[in-house]
Amino acid sequence: MHTVHVPLRERSYPIYIGDDLLNRADLIVSHVPQKRVAIVTDTTVACLHLKPVAAALEAADIDVMPVVLPAGEQEKNWNTLNSLFDALLARRCERKTTLIALGGGVIGDITGFAAATYLRGVPFIQIPTTLLAQVDSSVGGKTGINHPRGKNMIGAFYQPLTVLADTTALNTLPQRELSAGLAEVIKYGLIRDFPFFEWLENNIDALMARNAQALAYAVQRSCENKSEVVVIDEREEHGQRALLNLGHTFGHAIEAGLGFGTWLHGEAVAAGMVIAGRVSAAMGMISASDVARVVALLRRAALPVSAPALGIERYIELMGVDKKVVGGKIRFILLRSIGSAYLTSDVPADALSAGISASVSDE
Amino acid sequence: MHTVHVPLRERSYPIYIGDDLLNRADLIVSHVPQKRVAIVTDTTVACLHLKPVAAALEAADIDVMPVVLPAGEQEKNWNTLNSLFDALLARRCERKTTLIALGGGVIGDITGFAAATYLRGVPFIQIPTTLLAQVDSSVGGKTGINHPRGKNMIGAFYQPLTVLADTTALNTLPQRELSAGLAEVIKYGLIRDFPFFEWLENNIDALMARNAQALAYAVQRSCENKSEVVVIDEREEHGQRALLNLGHTFGHAIEAGLGFGTWLHGEAVAAGMVIAGRVSAAMGMISASDVARVVALLRRAALPVSAPALGIERYIELMGVDKKVVGGKIRFILLRSIGSAYLTSDVPADALSAGISASVSDE
Repeated sequence: MHTVHVPLRERSYPIYIGDDLLNRADLIVSHVPQKRVAIVTDTTVACLHLKPVAAALEAADIDVMPVVLPAGEQEKNWNTLNSLFDALLARRCERKTTLIALGGGVIGDITGFAAATYLRGVPFIQIPTTLLAQVDSSVGGKTGINHPRGKNMIGAFYQPLTVLADTTALNTLPQRELSAGLAEVIKYGLIRDFPFFEWLENNIDALMARNAQALAYAVQRSCENKSEVVVIDEREEHGQRALLNLGHTFGHAIEAGLGFGTWLHGEAVAAGMVIAGRVSAAMGMISASDVARVVALLRRAALPVSAPALGIERYIELMGVDKKVVGGKIRFILLRSIGSAYLTSDVPADALSAGISASVSDE
Repeated sequence: MHTVHVPLRERSYPIYIGDDLLNRADLIVSHVPQKRVAIVTDTTVACLHLKPVAAALEAADIDVMPVVLPAGEQEKNWNTLNSLFDALLARRCERKTTLIALGGGVIGDITGFAAATYLRGVPFIQIPTTLLAQVDSSVGGKTGINHPRGKNMIGAFYQPLTVLADTTALNTLPQRELSAGLAEVIKYGLIRDFPFFEWLENNIDALMARNAQALAYAVQRSCENKSEVVVIDEREEHGQRALLNLGHTFGHAIEAGLGFGTWLHGEAVAAGMVIAGRVSAAMGMISASDVARVVALLRRAALPVSAPALGIERYIELMGVDKKVVGGKIRFILLRSIGSAYLTSDVPADALSAGISASVSDE
C-alpha cells in the first residue's frame, strides 16, 4: 500500500492506494468521530462491493447504514441528492455520522455535496471504485450536482477525511470506463509531468491489460500531481488549479451538446484535449508532431480523438456557460508543449475555429 | 455609524451598523471583486428597499441584477433556491459576481446558501432589513434551507464579505416582527451578558417605540456578543456556539409542531426560552424569581411567554430531529442564572416534563 498525503492548510488527509483495501476497516475506523456511518453507493457498485465494505466495518463494531442510489450521470441531480437527504433524516443521521462514498465520480460528487450541506456539514470519506474517481474526482474536494443549464453548477469545496483507492476494484470496471479514467491520467502528463507522459507511452498496454503494478503507479502519480496542484490552489483562485481542466471546457461542451451521459466524461475530455492541442498548435505553441504523439497515446487507450460535429458556434455558446468564465471571457487551458499547460482568455477566433474544425470527425 | 469586526481565522469582515446605510454604495464597492452584483430580495422588501440600494450601486458604476423571490418562511425550500440558481445561470453570473441578500432571515439564509453552492461558491454580502436578521441570522455564516423533515437541515457555513445593518430599515418593520427580533436580542443578555439584560429592562419601551439610538445600541451589542461566540467556535464544534441556541430546541419543536410559519421564529424562541428557564428552575439552577424576571421582559416586548399545548411526548419527538442531537441524545441549553447559559444532554425526564407543562398555555 502506498500513501499520498494531501497537506492542506486547514487539515491534512491521506490517500491510501493499493490492493484489497475494501476490507481494510482499520483505515476507516481511525478517521471516523462516531461509530456510525452511512455508505452511499449506487445499484451497480452495491452488487460488486457493498458487502465486503459493510461487513468489514460491522466487524469493527461500526453501525452501518447503506443508502443505494440509482446509477448514472443523469442521476447527478437535485432529486437524487434529496432522496439521500431523506434517507439520512429518516435514519436520524447526526452531525458526527460519517458519509462514505463508495462508487465512481457521480456517487463521490453527490455524496460529498450531501456531506458538505447535510446539517451544514458532516464527516466524509471517499472509496472510489472507478479509475476516473481514483485519479481525479475523489481527490481535491470538488463536490456537486448538475443543473439542467450546466454540469457541476451547484456544489461546494469539501475535503474528505481520507480516500481509499483500491486498485483491485478496477478489475470489475468495464473497459470503456477504464479508458475514460486513463484520459485523466494522461492529462497529468500533458499539463505538468513530461516524465509521467513518457512512462505512460511505455506502459499504456500494461494499463489497458490491468496490470496491477502499473495501475497502482498510475493512480499514485496522478494523485501526487493532483494533490500538489490542489495544495497550491485549493479553491481555484490562482489559476494553477484551473490547469487541471485541460480539455474540460471543450469536453463539457461535447457532453452538454450531445446530452449528458452520451459520452463518458473521460471520453469527452480526451477529445477536448485533442482540440486544446490543435488550438495551441494553431497559435504556434505546441508542435504538430507533439499533437500527433498525444493523439497516438489516446488512441492506444481506446479513447476518442475526434469531436462530434456540433458546429463551431454551438461549441462557443456551450463553453460560455462554464464555471471557468471570468469577466464574460472564456478561459482556455492550452499547451506550450507536452508537460506544460497554461491558462489564457486571449485566444484568436481563427485559432479557435481552426482547432475545433481540425478535431471534428467527418461522420 | 458603528463597525463591529468579526475576526475569523480565515478572513475578517466588518458589520456596519447605523442610520441610512442602504444608499452607502461605498461600503459595498470596496468589498466586491467584480463590478457586477445580483441583489436577491423578496416581494415585500423589494417594494420598500430595492430601489435605493440598486440606484446607489448603479451610480457607483456597478451592474445590478435584481432577483425577487416570493416572501415567507414557507418559501425557504429547494424550489425557491432552484429558481434563484435558474436566474443566476440565465444571466450567466460568474464566480466573481457578488450575491447581495437584501431582506430578512429567509432571504439571508437562502441567498447565503446559494452563494455557498453556486459554482461552488461566490462572494456574498448581507443587507439585513429585519431586526432578527440584523442581530442574529446575518452574523456568523449559517446559511441554508428547510427540509420537509426539519428546519435548516440543508445548509453550509459561509461567511459574508460584509454586513450592512441599517437601523432606518427597521422603521418599516411590522410590530410583530420587531418583537420577534427582540427575542434574539434578549437571548444574548440571558446566555452571556447580564449588564445587557439589565440595559434591556431599562430600555425595552424605547426599543418597542423604535428609538433609533436604542435600536442601534441593541443591534451593536447583539452583533458583538454573537461575533465573540462565533470567533471562538465558528462551526459549532466546541459547545460555545450551541449556547446561541437557547430556546431554539424547544422553539423548533413549536415551529414544526404548529407548521412552519404559524409562529414567527422569534416568537417560538421566546416561548422556548421560557421553557428552558422553567426546566432549569426544575433542576434547581436558576431561581423562580429570575424566571419571572425573564417572563416579564419578554411580555413587555409583546412576545409569547406560554407554549402551545402539543403534548410532552410530541415535544420530545420533534426535538429528536434537530441538528443539536449527538449520539442519539438531545442537547439542551439551560440557564444557571440570567447571563449564564450552559449545554447539557443530561436532563432528568421529570424536570423536562415539569418545565414544559408549566410553560404550556391553558387555551
